[in-house]
Amino acid sequence: MSFRIEKDTMGEVKVPADKIWGAQTERSRNNFKIGPAASMPLEVVYGFAYLKKAAAYTNCELGVLAIEKRDLIAQVCDEILEGKHDDQFPLVVWQTGSGTQSNMNVNEVIANRAHQLAGKTIGEGEKTIQPNDDVNKSQSSNDTFPTGMHIAAYKKIVEVTIPGVKQLRNTLDKKSKAFKDVVKIGRTHLMDATPLTLGQELSGYVAQLDHGIKALENTLPHLSELALGGTAVGTGLNTPKGYDKRVAEYIAKFTNLPFVTAPNKFEALAAHDALVETHGALKQLAVSLNKIANDIRMMASGPRSGIGEIIIPANEPGSSIMPGKVNPTQCEALTMVCAQVFGNDVTVTVGGTQGHYELNVFKPVMAANVLQSAQLIGDACVSFDVNCAVGIEPNHTVIEKLLNNSLMLVTALNTKIGYYKAAEIANTAHKNGTTLKEEAINLGYVTAEEYDEWVNPKDMVGSLK
Amino acid sequence: MSFRIEKDTMGEVKVPADKIWGAQTERSRNNFKIGPAASMPLEVVYGFAYLKKAAAYTNCELGVLAIEKRDLIAQVCDEILEGKHDDQFPLVVWQTGSGTQSNMNVNEVIANRAHQLAGKTIGEGEKTIQPNDDVNKSQSSNDTFPTGMHIAAYKKIVEVTIPGVKQLRNTLDKKSKAFKDVVKIGRTHLMDATPLTLGQELSGYVAQLDHGIKALENTLPHLSELALGGTAVGTGLNTPKGYDKRVAEYIAKFTNLPFVTAPNKFEALAAHDALVETHGALKQLAVSLNKIANDIRMMASGPRSGIGEIIIPANEPGSSIMPGKVNPTQCEALTMVCAQVFGNDVTVTVGGTQGHYELNVFKPVMAANVLQSAQLIGDACVSFDVNCAVGIEPNHTVIEKLLNNSLMLVTALNTKIGYYKAAEIANTAHKNGTTLKEEAINLGYVTAEEYDEWVNPKDMVGSLK
Amino acid sequence: MSFRIEKDTMGEVKVPADKIWGAQTERSRNNFKIGPAASMPLEVVYGFAYLKKAAAYTNCELGVLAIEKRDLIAQVCDEILEGKHDDQFPLVVWQTGSGTQSNMNVNEVIANRAHQLAGKTIGEGEKTIQPNDDVNKSQSSNDTFPTGMHIAAYKKIVEVTIPGVKQLRNTLDKKSKAFKDVVKIGRTHLMDATPLTLGQELSGYVAQLDHGIKALENTLPHLSELALGGTAVGTGLNTPKGYDKRVAEYIAKFTNLPFVTAPNKFEALAAHDALVETHGALKQLAVSLNKIANDIRMMASGPRSGIGEIIIPANEPGSSIMPGKVNPTQCEALTMVCAQVFGNDVTVTVGGTQGHYELNVFKPVMAANVLQSAQLIGDACVSFDVNCAVGIEPNHTVIEKLLNNSLMLVTALNTKIGYYKAAEIANTAHKNGTTLKEEAINLGYVTAEEYDEWVNPKDMVGSLK
Amino acid sequence: MSFRIEKDTMGEVKVPADKIWGAQTERSRNNFKIGPAASMPLEVVYGFAYLKKAAAYTNCELGVLAIEKRDLIAQVCDEILEGKHDDQFPLVVWQTGSGTQSNMNVNEVIANRAHQLAGKTIGEGEKTIQPNDDVNKSQSSNDTFPTGMHIAAYKKIVEVTIPGVKQLRNTLDKKSKAFKDVVKIGRTHLMDATPLTLGQELSGYVAQLDHGIKALENTLPHLSELALGGTAVGTGLNTPKGYDKRVAEYIAKFTNLPFVTAPNKFEALAAHDALVETHGALKQLAVSLNKIANDIRMMASGPRSGIGEIIIPANEPGSSIMPGKVNPTQCEALTMVCAQVFGNDVTVTVGGTQGHYELNVFKPVMAANVLQSAQLIGDACVSFDVNCAVGIEPNHTVIEKLLNNSLMLVTALNTKIGYYKAAEIANTAHKNGTTLKEEAINLGYVTAEEYDEWVNPKDMVGSLK
Repeated sequence: MSFRIEKDTMGEVKVPADKIWGAQTERSRNNFKIGPAASMPLEVVYGFAYLKKAAAYTNCELGVLAIEKRDLIAQVCDEILEGKHDDQFPLVVWQTGSGTQSNMNVNEVIANRAHQLAGKTIGEGEKTIQPNDDVNKSQSSNDTFPTGMHIAAYKKIVEVTIPGVKQLRNTLDKKSKAFKDVVKIGRTHLMDATPLTLGQELSGYVAQLDHGIKALENTLPHLSELALGGTAVGTGLNTPKGYDKRVAEYIAKFTNLPFVTAPNKFEALAAHDALVETHGALKQLAVSLNKIANDIRMMASGPRSGIGEIIIPANEPGSSIMPGKVNPTQCEALTMVCAQVFGNDVTVTVGGTQGHYELNVFKPVMAANVLQSAQLIGDACVSFDVNCAVGIEPNHTVIEKLLNNSLMLVTALNTKIGYYKAAEIANTAHKNGTTLKEEAINLGYVTAEEYDEWVNPKDMVGSLK
Repeated sequence: MSFRIEKDTMGEVKVPADKIWGAQTERSRNNFKIGPAASMPLEVVYGFAYLKKAAAYTNCELGVLAIEKRDLIAQVCDEILEGKHDDQFPLVVWQTGSGTQSNMNVNEVIANRAHQLAGKTIGEGEKTIQPNDDVNKSQSSNDTFPTGMHIAAYKKIVEVTIPGVKQLRNTLDKKSKAFKDVVKIGRTHLMDATPLTLGQELSGYVAQLDHGIKALENTLPHLSELALGGTAVGTGLNTPKGYDKRVAEYIAKFTNLPFVTAPNKFEALAAHDALVETHGALKQLAVSLNKIANDIRMMASGPRSGIGEIIIPANEPGSSIMPGKVNPTQCEALTMVCAQVFGNDVTVTVGGTQGHYELNVFKPVMAANVLQSAQLIGDACVSFDVNCAVGIEPNHTVIEKLLNNSLMLVTALNTKIGYYKAAEIANTAHKNGTTLKEEAINLGYVTAEEYDEWVNPKDMVGSLK
Repeated sequence: MSFRIEKDTMGEVKVPADKIWGAQTERSRNNFKIGPAASMPLEVVYGFAYLKKAAAYTNCELGVLAIEKRDLIAQVCDEILEGKHDDQFPLVVWQTGSGTQSNMNVNEVIANRAHQLAGKTIGEGEKTIQPNDDVNKSQSSNDTFPTGMHIAAYKKIVEVTIPGVKQLRNTLDKKSKAFKDVVKIGRTHLMDATPLTLGQELSGYVAQLDHGIKALENTLPHLSELALGGTAVGTGLNTPKGYDKRVAEYIAKFTNLPFVTAPNKFEALAAHDALVETHGALKQLAVSLNKIANDIRMMASGPRSGIGEIIIPANEPGSSIMPGKVNPTQCEALTMVCAQVFGNDVTVTVGGTQGHYELNVFKPVMAANVLQSAQLIGDACVSFDVNCAVGIEPNHTVIEKLLNNSLMLVTALNTKIGYYKAAEIANTAHKNGTTLKEEAINLGYVTAEEYDEWVNPKDMVGSLK
Repeated sequence: MSFRIEKDTMGEVKVPADKIWGAQTERSRNNFKIGPAASMPLEVVYGFAYLKKAAAYTNCELGVLAIEKRDLIAQVCDEILEGKHDDQFPLVVWQTGSGTQSNMNVNEVIANRAHQLAGKTIGEGEKTIQPNDDVNKSQSSNDTFPTGMHIAAYKKIVEVTIPGVKQLRNTLDKKSKAFKDVVKIGRTHLMDATPLTLGQELSGYVAQLDHGIKALENTLPHLSELALGGTAVGTGLNTPKGYDKRVAEYIAKFTNLPFVTAPNKFEALAAHDALVETHGALKQLAVSLNKIANDIRMMASGPRSGIGEIIIPANEPGSSIMPGKVNPTQCEALTMVCAQVFGNDVTVTVGGTQGHYELNVFKPVMAANVLQSAQLIGDACVSFDVNCAVGIEPNHTVIEKLLNNSLMLVTALNTKIGYYKAAEIANTAHKNGTTLKEEAINLGYVTAEEYDEWVNPKDMVGSLK
């Protein structure tokens, strides 16, 4: 392999000749061989690209960067956002906790690529653009990394998570309306209870997801606050006047998202409660999704010796040994995602607790976990929707059989004959393996006519239908 | 011990003669000997008292309960709320997951006490009021327990948590303003960094708590939704028309809090995402408080061989063996509370995931954990405020010494001589154990006059002051 | 209320006259009003009583404490262990993180009570015994609290947790053997699968608990290591030669448990990985118990519209609105305990991570959580055993019906006709709602005789029976 | 792109012509577009390769597979283990929870590649080897996936985790011995305390890691138990007699690791407590490592305005804005790894709780998290060792200054003049900003000679040295 020499303040480093990153990136590659390479999410890199371009525009506008440099920087940022340099970001999550090395990775790639765009050869001649003095002008890792991760997380949530959850929510809502008259047995404690409609049951899921989406949206204002302009410790040292607000406006413009400068930069560097807050809402959605997926697989269980009240699509052979088996695989994928999100929440929480003085140094791990959870929830909702939810159908035969068997229809008699006599009817029928009607009449508490009039499942689902 | 006989649908039970609870309470005491007695939070019992009274008023208003019964029920509820029957609720958290037995405990105590109030002897004669048919009228455990726990949690948060956090927040805000001119060294990665003021540092904590309070308040609308009126499975079976809205209005009136009936009762019984959501915000506050307490104890460390930039009150002897030792004990109590809250969050999350069909049966454990976290955070903030935060004072001598030592003041030269030369100055001073100024001049990059003009800590904190 | 004056190194404090604690206990009561009073577990106090007695014996033996003082101290310790002073320990978990104040609470109670035993009046005259110089001799909070909490945790685990789990394990083992010939349908992915016996199914639970007990026992050696003798920072300053080993021997003697002195006292003070390790095993047991309880409630679900393969005892009325309902309440209590343990594990983990330098100051919260989990698991296993597991019976009618319905019996044909043809039979029967045998013959893959010979559920459970 | 047609029991599927996987792999790719492709760890695939080869050998030996087929299967398995087919395993973690599709991916790749090895073209002619009937013979996903994940986890732990931790442990041990005479101030509650040696301090870390390694090794026996031979539900249906023991012997032989057949196959399929147990020990190690890394970065803090007692290597420029800054980046990477492990523990725990009946369907997410934690801990320990621990050196000047300043040296006087007088000396010196010696003499409690004799830091570290 051939190398070229790159320098930083600590001296010279050999960098593979075909790479455009610089000395600090290379040092980080060598010093942090932890887990697979390039685990730093590309979304964070793209977040950096937006902010480096915005900083260049702001610096230029405020008179501290030449327009030619601005345009070169912006051009490389656009290339990065087009995915042209994805292989130039080899660093891992498990680096310095401020993400300094990923910031420098971006600075170095921009500087070297700008040199190329200026028609020169990397490693030869004076750098057209300096990674620290130009690309990183009016910035610090300490305010760029949190800015980059807020951009990345915000985009992921509005582009992947919320649309994914809404897609599933809308399907469930349609199903809820379609099945509004399918009366079935209710179950509490997993035990037979009074009836409701399948539509009502599904409406509860819709309400859960509506609450979850609202909770997630409630976290977006905090996430929209950008640290940029705080530089090293939050004071904005070495930034021109007005820089922080202006740079946030440029980021908002470039991303078309409502980013603002953080009112308090000290909080924005030293704490990442915004990520804690956002992941808390992601976790809440996972809680809801776990409940929904569990219910659906239990209701679909069988086909012959389970509950079997609904039918879900058969998408693949279910077993390598049991022929003809079909499993609720989308439920399984979704609940595994939920388990991951519950764990990620602890990781984000722990990271959030450990800011010290002016800086939280768990930035990369917090960002990576928020992005993973946001992606997985969005993707899993779409997968679950397309491959399972849209195909849910009631198994009317089973539903009716299980409904009519139920001893809990006796509850309808509470208001007619009182709880104690109703209980006696149910207990007797249970003991004797008989029907409620038989025992209700035997015990002399109601006539057959009264029973038929009073105990009608369809009437028992109505009050809040 | 003497006993009387109480009955339920399963038969007779012996109850201690001096207790006013009934058969089902007694069964539960015997069947769930798990952990200390009476672990079910009294706040939940009080929540039940509000709702039983509200239900009695609503049932009466809607024509299904006699006014005499209403008044007897209401009278006992008021007694419960005055704390007169605290010893009549012996059940544990670790009972049936719907809290049915605590609902029955309340029903039985109200019925028996009403019997007394009607001038009769418990256990003698026809019950004046029936626990199921009267006290529990138009209700189920499945909608009362979540209602009771929402009332309890909401009250705790607005009466204990938020006032406690705000009290601490306001003290920190005052201190932030008082110390706005105390320039000190900043620290990132625990290492010396560029300066800021102590006031700026504390302002970050205030911003954290402001965000946390806002996040907690964002969860209150979900928590204000009451399940009552859903009865067994969410359909509202056996409730009179209009009951759900009206009963929520009565609860709002009795508690003077903005409770409303849950728009979707199926969600309100089968899922407790509202508790998940609220606890998520409590966890976020704990994350913030953990950061704040950690910083304060590190800054107060010493007295002679630590950081020692601030002085905190000495409230008690710190060591049983080291005489004269004073420790940051309030920081320790607070961070232990945070650790508990982080764990409780997982418990609430796990409970929230496991609703099945029409009912979540982790209600008691979820309620107990939310209430504990809400109480501990509120109490710990007040304790921390009164016994620590109000007494925080800067140690000016130490602050100035540490500030002027710092090599990171060199950052002010970045915009004058560039990052690389500034780094050379700092590295040289570090290696030689000299001052920045000496090396800056030695290296020929600045004159003494320029140095004094450009490197002034007070000017380095200003841009965002 | 009347008071007396107590003193410590910071001055005078008013203490309620009827209490025998001293100045530092009273300061702590006032300075830490966080959550309910007296939340510090009494088990920790008892642990202290063992170690204070052992220290007195060792100090006396090594010539640094008079025999009269030794005997007075020992006498009070015995009284504490008899529960005579339970109301003299009013402090909370949320105090100083070293538990210094609980150590002093014990020291003060012993000193004052010894004064009484010496025939004097508390608060009058020179103290017969000094809380610091005598009771705390050769000790520090930093080594006593971890010693006390190890004693408490070890005792709880061997006296409550392991016996409780074993009791349940043995019942499940008996049931497993009793049901060894009850062939039933297996379920994977909640879906019908090939058969097994109910005994085999239960044997899996037994194996889980056996592994869990072993894992818990594996943690006991670490837990048996006592910090005592390390004093303030682990060096054993101010202890007589040989003290650490001897005091551990006395503790082992007094508790009749195999305690030893920690080989490394620095680890024993600064880290509480022993508690992390032990709680990790408690969490593993909770994982197992959660699985077992879930299975049992699903198998018992019904009575008419669920799975219904087993019958569990009906211990109480299950619903306040649905008459005759019986719920798997012991499963619910147990799984709520598990949820608590999962959360506690995070609390213990977080506490464990935050030792700083020579001391971990999350001792009380770690101890409290370990003790709670250990108690709850032990109690819940006994409750589950007595009130549920011993009464589990198969519902043979249901089991046979569900078994014979199953399409997964087709798996027996894999080795005869290959996976693909077997799948075709199952799929066809599923589509047509017919039996496997009908379709197997229709498709021409087997004769009726072959089918009956090859597809026999009893033969399908045998290989590993 | 060109395609070929592959078939399974559900019909035909188009597969990219240049891939050797089959129909079920392709279905899974399309049905589970969740997160990045190929997230299923390759280690699991390699685990499968070992077991498929072992199964082929066992099947052949027991007379149910032709030797030619055995050899073809074994040859492909060897190729997989050489990494030749890494790009043929495109599936994600978020698939069916039994990992069925990854099992089939392996079966299909082996079958198709064997067809090639037999000189034929994939997709043409009768398959030389059937994926289900031959490669999967005597197996089910339900017993292969857990076997594959146990192999993968066991290997990772003994090849990466334990060696990594031991490497760091040994360096710390060497440093502990090298610094055995470096007396420094101790710190408890972050506050000045009595002295100890730097060697003693580091010895605590060594003890932590020793305990952690032992705890991890304690989990290996459970992890060594293999499910293979249980097939679909644990009964071993469709396996030849003796298969389970023999196949485990082959796996042990091929991996050179002490694998055994699980004594209870029902546990081995339905529960994954072995992974819970192993991850619990990984979490314990992370707790220890977090403590160690925190201490080191605090002790190294500065360089001028922190604690500064030790010097750690400067591996890279620390700041993009503050020139000359060097940060404890290895500590940060390591603690971020720890945060990830704490979260992963919750994921593994949650997965472990949710086995239903005969199968736990959180296998892939549990395996992926265990493998990630095991890899990250091992790698991070090596990185921390090489780039930080080996270079730790005491800063003697600072250490001595901080030691001699400390007021806590007064503790040495406890046994001479009592705790109360010693406290008075310390408090007075603290108030007056004087030295202990001055005040000890001023107060008349000791003479100058006594002070010098009694208060000698070197003597205060000795008892347990």
